[in-house]
Amino acid sequence: MDKSLPNRAIEWRDRQLILLDQRRLPNAVEFLSIDTVSGTFDAIRDMVVRGAPAIGITAAYGVVLSALKHQQLDDGNARQQINTDIARLSTARPTAVNLAWALQRMQKCLQNQNSVCLNSLEKEAIAIHQEDIAANKVMGELGASFMDAQSTVMTHCNAGALATGGYGTALGVIRSAFAHGKLEKVFANETRPWFQGSRLTAWELEQEQIPVNLICDSAAASALRAHHVDWIIVGADRVAANGDVANKIGTYSLAVLAKHMGKKFMVVAPTSTIDLNSASGDDIEIEQRDRQEVTNVGGNIMATEGAKVWNPVFDVTPAALIDVLITERGAVENPNTSKIVQLFSKQDV
Amino acid sequence: MDKSLPNRAIEWRDRQLILLDQRRLPNAVEFLSIDTVSGTFDAIRDMVVRGAPAIGITAAYGVVLSALKHQQLDDGNARQQINTDIARLSTARPTAVNLAWALQRMQKCLQNQNSVCLNSLEKEAIAIHQEDIAANKVMGELGASFMDAQSTVMTHCNAGALATGGYGTALGVIRSAFAHGKLEKVFANETRPWFQGSRLTAWELEQEQIPVNLICDSAAASALRAHHVDWIIVGADRVAANGDVANKIGTYSLAVLAKHMGKKFMVVAPTSTIDLNSASGDDIEIEQRDRQEVTNVGGNIMATEGAKVWNPVFDVTPAALIDVLITERGAVENPNTSKIVQLFSKQDV
Repeated sequence: MDKSLPNRAIEWRDRQLILLDQRRLPNAVEFLSIDTVSGTFDAIRDMVVRGAPAIGITAAYGVVLSALKHQQLDDGNARQQINTDIARLSTARPTAVNLAWALQRMQKCLQNQNSVCLNSLEKEAIAIHQEDIAANKVMGELGASFMDAQSTVMTHCNAGALATGGYGTALGVIRSAFAHGKLEKVFANETRPWFQGSRLTAWELEQEQIPVNLICDSAAASALRAHHVDWIIVGADRVAANGDVANKIGTYSLAVLAKHMGKKFMVVAPTSTIDLNSASGDDIEIEQRDRQEVTNVGGNIMATEGAKVWNPVFDVTPAALIDVLITERGAVENPNTSKIVQLFSKQDV
Repeated sequence: MDKSLPNRAIEWRDRQLILLDQRRLPNAVEFLSIDTVSGTFDAIRDMVVRGAPAIGITAAYGVVLSALKHQQLDDGNARQQINTDIARLSTARPTAVNLAWALQRMQKCLQNQNSVCLNSLEKEAIAIHQEDIAANKVMGELGASFMDAQSTVMTHCNAGALATGGYGTALGVIRSAFAHGKLEKVFANETRPWFQGSRLTAWELEQEQIPVNLICDSAAASALRAHHVDWIIVGADRVAANGDVANKIGTYSLAVLAKHMGKKFMVVAPTSTIDLNSASGDDIEIEQRDRQEVTNVGGNIMATEGAKVWNPVFDVTPAALIDVLITERGAVENPNTSKIVQLFSKQDV
């Protein structure tokens, strides 16, 4: 693997969307060039790109691709076509609220234009992308400030540069802690069924020479007990108004273990991941994916056809199990509805 | 797959050991014929056969194969060779105490002979095998008696017919509950890194048309919350004198989840799995296996070479998290040292 390559999931270059094909990592570093809305839709649905912030950014660029295609139409038709594409993109995956959030920003930008303006839509998408990177860096510093020297951290799935505009949410905190000399090592859970921990998180950390230990998801309890892990740090796909967190399947279990063993549990997510319209985790739709993701591992059939498969992609961690929620607007300890509403009433930072 | 085939892990036929190659399931049902001690050793180490009781039974037959080879020697030499083979077999895998237990029974049988007697060693190995099946059936009924009608059960790894002489420990209870019409369905955790849940448990249950839902290990918390699971039922590789249980990696996490969510947790193990020489779980050696089991899934490389891997095969569940330990000598609720010592002081059943 060429280590000089950037581990950037998303680039916007010459009005094309360049996506790192994350399904191929770590065995191949390949980029796909996308110039259509349906290509964007497929890339999100088929997990070429994944991670809530990255999905939102990708969809925003998809809207620019729609405008690029339809800008020659009369204004009414162009708006209609772009809005149809926005509606389509919003259904690519159901759980990450950043998708809806980014598309709403693009739609608002469109509404504020007297006539469809490709340049300002492009500028808005780039702003969404750049603001996400900036938010990650703010969160990285803030999250790291909660950690003591020689900390050991466990993380789940990939909430890194690959899952965001760049730098990462949970891995952003880990990067910042490492830069400040506070980090001893990271336990990365492999994260079935897609192995994002093995394939993406271990790869990202290795590139920056951050010490990483890979474990099976089911070894988390033993690792927490045997290795004096200080913090479990994860990202989020959607945070409800009361602080309940939808994140990769397995997160809930880790939060229960953390509470049982007296470990600290941190969720790192930009406010674009917080959905005030979801009062609690019960309001969050949890995506179910195909049985083959569980029964077929790289072409190897692991189970008989007769077995039913239940394959939820995310779970909901109750707010009561979360010690601190890190956002770019500040940290929320022991999150609840009033603290989260208060966070949004703050002046923009 | 030919459903008429017996799902019997171990057979002793014409003084050969016939093992179902469990590494190939469910894609192929293949049997290996073994007639040497080193073949027996390899089969245990390489997981042709696995599961604590099955390992013990296999090793006992291995001693018969040793006697078969060495019976022509003079008595002193024959004993010496057989004892050397017993010592070798005892090192094939470290955690399952049934291995040591069965080999000690064989050694005692040998000691009680005036001269090496192949027939009585063979009779002893067959007795170990048959007693295990009988114990499983007793435990199946006893465990099922703790369950109410329409129960949903979660199990981990494979503690079934394949892991024992036949019938199974945890799956024995599930079989008995199903026979009594008490069982609604089973959640089987896939059980990384070897997928015993997908490959073996789902296969065993499907053969008997017991409804089974397969999930990733990390989906257990969600399944417990969403599906009203009544019991988590597992086997054991070694039970310490105080009731701490070493079992497949991930068991400890399930026990913590059960306690947190008010679910019941049952361990099913014959007394041959109880090691009074291990005062607590701290005294149990936990086998570590190769990094490739985690990073290489069926020929697919899932992680970069630079990532370290921590791959413990078992974990220890503290006795305080166990509602009931089912043995062939009786049920031990809220197990502790005095209750377990008392169990052994009972008359044989």
